[in-house]
Amino acid sequence: MPPTAAPRRDLHPDVLTRELLAPYLHDQATDFLRSLRVHRESGQDPQGAADAAGAARALRGSARRISATLHTFRPLTDTGWADTLRSELAWLSGVLAREHAYAARLNRLLEALNRLSGAGAGPVPVSPARGGGKSEPGSSLTVGAARAGALLERQLTLARTRAHSAALQALGSSRFHAVADAVALLASDVPLGPAAAAPAAEVLAPLATGAEQRLREAVAALPLGRAAHPYNAEALVHGLAPAPSSEAQDAPWHHVRLLLRLHRYAREVIAAPADTLTAARALDRHRDAAEAATAAASAARTPRIAPATAYALGVLHADQRHEVEAARFAFQQAWQPLPAAAP
Amino acid sequence: MPPTAAPRRDLHPDVLTRELLAPYLHDQATDFLRSLRVHRESGQDPQGAADAAGAARALRGSARRISATLHTFRPLTDTGWADTLRSELAWLSGVLAREHAYAARLNRLLEALNRLSGAGAGPVPVSPARGGGKSEPGSSLTVGAARAGALLERQLTLARTRAHSAALQALGSSRFHAVADAVALLASDVPLGPAAAAPAAEVLAPLATGAEQRLREAVAALPLGRAAHPYNAEALVHGLAPAPSSEAQDAPWHHVRLLLRLHRYAREVIAAPADTLTAARALDRHRDAAEAATAAASAARTPRIAPATAYALGVLHADQRHEVEAARFAFQQAWQPLPAAAP
Repeated sequence: MPPTAAPRRDLHPDVLTRELLAPYLHDQATDFLRSLRVHRESGQDPQGAADAAGAARALRGSARRISATLHTFRPLTDTGWADTLRSELAWLSGVLAREHAYAARLNRLLEALNRLSGAGAGPVPVSPARGGGKSEPGSSLTVGAARAGALLERQLTLARTRAHSAALQALGSSRFHAVADAVALLASDVPLGPAAAAPAAEVLAPLATGAEQRLREAVAALPLGRAAHPYNAEALVHGLAPAPSSEAQDAPWHHVRLLLRLHRYAREVIAAPADTLTAARALDRHRDAAEAATAAASAARTPRIAPATAYALGVLHADQRHEVEAARFAFQQAWQPLPAAAP
Repeated sequence: MPPTAAPRRDLHPDVLTRELLAPYLHDQATDFLRSLRVHRESGQDPQGAADAAGAARALRGSARRISATLHTFRPLTDTGWADTLRSELAWLSGVLAREHAYAARLNRLLEALNRLSGAGAGPVPVSPARGGGKSEPGSSLTVGAARAGALLERQLTLARTRAHSAALQALGSSRFHAVADAVALLASDVPLGPAAAAPAAEVLAPLATGAEQRLREAVAALPLGRAAHPYNAEALVHGLAPAPSSEAQDAPWHHVRLLLRLHRYAREVIAAPADTLTAARALDRHRDAAEAATAAASAARTPRIAPATAYALGVLHADQRHEVEAARFAFQQAWQPLPAAAP
């Protein structure tokens, strides 16, 4: 028996588009402003730093939802205003995401090095004695892992610190204050177009279905058959080529990740949450592993590193590319039970 | 429904043990002597070299079957004679196998480097211009792959040449002539013990079942549950540790490979061939990939190699360990449908 069609949200014919769209945008704008307040009020102590990180995450989440909603339901709003706000929110999300991304990437790489060097649950020893005082037979590889960890820590911590400064600077800029003002306006009044007065079932629902359709088309174009076959060695193919094809082969998956997110937020607006969490997590993991692999390869191009360090970075790169492949397999598995859209 | 029991070969009660055991050993001994003759008569031209390689493979196959049969059905023969012949055949197989193993390992590693460097079906360019005349952006990794290929080719070709000399020397030794004489004797007269006069169903079959039982116990002790979960990252764990645990984690799989072979040959004797080809191939691949990974790691310990070479060897090592994991997965899949032994 083929999978049954998704239970469609039966929107009552009396419900108007603006009655769903405006409250959703209100809620997201309110969340955005609340997160912003928490972020400003959090101090410098560990608890404060944790609060600030949480607030920044929540801020990004609200910004993404507002932006996605303005994108999917673009014909229902003042499009000039919507497009400007979307591009400003994209800038803000980007600036805020970077610090977190570098921290998460370093974490992922050090954890992988830990696993690879058999250090158990403890942290990788990142500062081995230079020149190797107590070298045991075969320990050159361990020294390599430790040095690779130290190199990655140095490079990614520097990048993270820069991202942190950029985020602080952005949050103090007049450009940011303009975004915050626009969102504050959204919390009380959404500039909807005339189409928003029509019944939701006739206007809002088809736009949400359009987002789902674009997602399904992009997924259909993915090499899912290959991903379904475990250990297909696809993710690492050409991994040592002059122009590694990993970016080209990863791009369609990254694109699906964004479309899946648009689909999920569109379903939130019509209050019919999408059951796509497992698939979304697989694609998050796909993105994280792909970027970690790139960071390992990039660290290996650092001049004057020891061969043992380069060797460890090579193992690490391949390990993360395998994670990329594993994430594709997981996405394929998660996607299968997802019911097809009703025709 | 659980898998049904294997269709047991119903040995006719009138068939005696020696009526199955002696012809099997005769046939194997005859094959051994024929392969030996082909090997001696093959010339130095390419066709001759191919014939010699084929003959050496056939010789090893016969030696393995004779040895396995003497092992599994040990109580049915003159045990002193059998044990001596077995140890001499093991020595001969070992000497003959090495040359082929080095050639196959180099092939596997160069093919993997090809795939990793995106060189398509063509051979890896093994002699890049030293100092890199026409270096493109990002081409350091390709140079690394090419140099890694050249390094492996140098090391494994040297090992292979040494193994070839050792094999030639062995085939000319008096020790070898003694083995060949013993096998020639086996082609006409098998020194069976008194138990070989009993019905095959009472004596030979239980010994074959014993071989199967030992195989099943060893397989049951494998981490098959983990292997069934693809991308479990087990094969590469501790891959950068001072004492990589790969040998320890591979050993039980290598052991099962040998037991599977004993089982297969025992079934040949009772003329009920085992349907274990897919499982056996998976374990061959497991062994080959494990040894190739070790060769890549060992090449990375060569003094004074460039970081790019070491990086490529690291990627290669991880890629082969990934193959190890894929082979375990394949074995687990192949083993599942294999029916359980009747109680």
